[in-house]
Amino acid sequence: MQSFKDLIAQFSQQFEQQHFPEQPSQLYNAASHILGIGGKRIRPVLCLMGNELFDTLHPDAFQVGNAVELFHNFTLIHDDIMDKAPLRRGKPTVHTIYGDPAAILAGDVMLISVYERLNKVQPHYKQKIISVFNKAAIEVCEGQQLDMDFEALDPEKVQYDDYVHMIGLKTSVLLAASLQLGGIIGGASEGNQQHLYAFGKNIGIAFQIQDDYLDAFGDPDKFGKQQGGDILVNKKTFLLLKALELCNPVQRAELKRLMETSPSDKVEKVLELFRSCKVDEWAEKEKDRFQQLAFRRLDDIAVLSNRKTPLMELADYLLNRQQ
Amino acid sequence: MQSFKDLIAQFSQQFEQQHFPEQPSQLYNAASHILGIGGKRIRPVLCLMGNELFDTLHPDAFQVGNAVELFHNFTLIHDDIMDKAPLRRGKPTVHTIYGDPAAILAGDVMLISVYERLNKVQPHYKQKIISVFNKAAIEVCEGQQLDMDFEALDPEKVQYDDYVHMIGLKTSVLLAASLQLGGIIGGASEGNQQHLYAFGKNIGIAFQIQDDYLDAFGDPDKFGKQQGGDILVNKKTFLLLKALELCNPVQRAELKRLMETSPSDKVEKVLELFRSCKVDEWAEKEKDRFQQLAFRRLDDIAVLSNRKTPLMELADYLLNRQQ
Repeated sequence: MQSFKDLIAQFSQQFEQQHFPEQPSQLYNAASHILGIGGKRIRPVLCLMGNELFDTLHPDAFQVGNAVELFHNFTLIHDDIMDKAPLRRGKPTVHTIYGDPAAILAGDVMLISVYERLNKVQPHYKQKIISVFNKAAIEVCEGQQLDMDFEALDPEKVQYDDYVHMIGLKTSVLLAASLQLGGIIGGASEGNQQHLYAFGKNIGIAFQIQDDYLDAFGDPDKFGKQQGGDILVNKKTFLLLKALELCNPVQRAELKRLMETSPSDKVEKVLELFRSCKVDEWAEKEKDRFQQLAFRRLDDIAVLSNRKTPLMELADYLLNRQQ
Repeated sequence: MQSFKDLIAQFSQQFEQQHFPEQPSQLYNAASHILGIGGKRIRPVLCLMGNELFDTLHPDAFQVGNAVELFHNFTLIHDDIMDKAPLRRGKPTVHTIYGDPAAILAGDVMLISVYERLNKVQPHYKQKIISVFNKAAIEVCEGQQLDMDFEALDPEKVQYDDYVHMIGLKTSVLLAASLQLGGIIGGASEGNQQHLYAFGKNIGIAFQIQDDYLDAFGDPDKFGKQQGGDILVNKKTFLLLKALELCNPVQRAELKRLMETSPSDKVEKVLELFRSCKVDEWAEKEKDRFQQLAFRRLDDIAVLSNRKTPLMELADYLLNRQQ
């Protein structure tokens, strides 16, 4: 059993390789760019931890870890094109540097290379591995489409449960599947795989709530992003959707006015409204609720509880960060 | 043994199903759109024929046929975005109707669904099937990138051999791999697989030369496209590249002037130049050369020659069409 920090270091070292050939350079430089700008490598490490929860690490966990990390980076390249995002992790996005065509193609070639990795695992669980991975991969695409659909809607038209469903698809199912894939490699029973998946999915949603909370209320020096970045662009977040539900008609009118007119003190005023309708307190409770749901499913996994320590430490690291 | 026309009918009937769920509708309508506008379904039929060359048809050949046809349609969606193409088979392209973001995502989800199909084949050759497919899939992306790289170059800077290499990747390797994949399902030896692959690759190049020829010299009523469409947009084709090589300095200067100034009689004048430097005759010979290369490899396949009849008929249909 290794700590998640050791596993991150181990995976990152192994992942720092040349993933692609040199030619055509425009294509492969675009693909390599996103891999070179860092990232926490959480998904592959979840895969390693899912394996280690049940058995000693198998090389297949690194193959599948590679696959999920490449898939995640593929989604970043394509999402950034769709969102016309100029920056990613403080660096120019792939399409900004290489243009949309090479960026689309770099994502495509990266997605194909995902299956090169998955094709290397042992035959006895290959079908299951590809099937679990594909289900998550398709759901991530569906989540991105729902997110774009929601962005085009009036925020009051977006139901909270639909929003949680979308966030689950867009950000949580890949975390959940990464754990399950590791579990499969470690020989977990179907029941234990499902517990592990549900643990990951709930942690993912709790993480997103916290991310929205930190964007609004976090210390910008520690969080590393501009405070209220989501508020400035009227992004539909857990906080905004819940605030529209919790606030009274006067507050709602004021919130909508701020969103429509974007005055210079918009962030400050929206945060005031968020606080006065107590959406900050709600967010902390809602995060805790999903965290508890997650831990309950971790408890249900039939292995010695000390084997679960690294996963609990990772969850704590992800959900109690100030940055 | 069935004729290629029977196999096309059989595959098309089976392929006319609902491939995707209903929601999110924007995503899946975009994906379904391209499947609904037709297509010759040549690639899946090559897969069926590769199987039948060696053994009776196995259901896996339909699964893999589905996969290659979905992959081909995925490339059409993404290529049309990259090329900003307004029309495909006379209908508005996916991105024109649904916008670039949904079109990118529809291609992505289609590419993932390719592997759902491949994941269903029998375990004993699954690794080989995915590996052969992936090699071709990556090469198709590389071919598209090289094509875009070439389009940005002065046509005199593009070497003929490099152009043939690009066309091979962009249009032939998927035909070749479709045949090989069918061969694998039919139990072909590695040697026979390679002959089948080479047959498909050379047929693909011959087909592209003919396509370029018909665009310039074909009967527009039969060909179904505007005559000289490639000439009008200065597209780098077999004919243009070879004409620049074959013509004398005076002709070359005239050809470049026509390309730069695009006068109203451009197509007529370029065709005159093509004829006077005999690039039309060269194209017919070059097509025949690749066709002969292909048939030589088909001869080398160690099965009774009457089993090869359907493939020869298909090649003849593809390479001697006037439309």
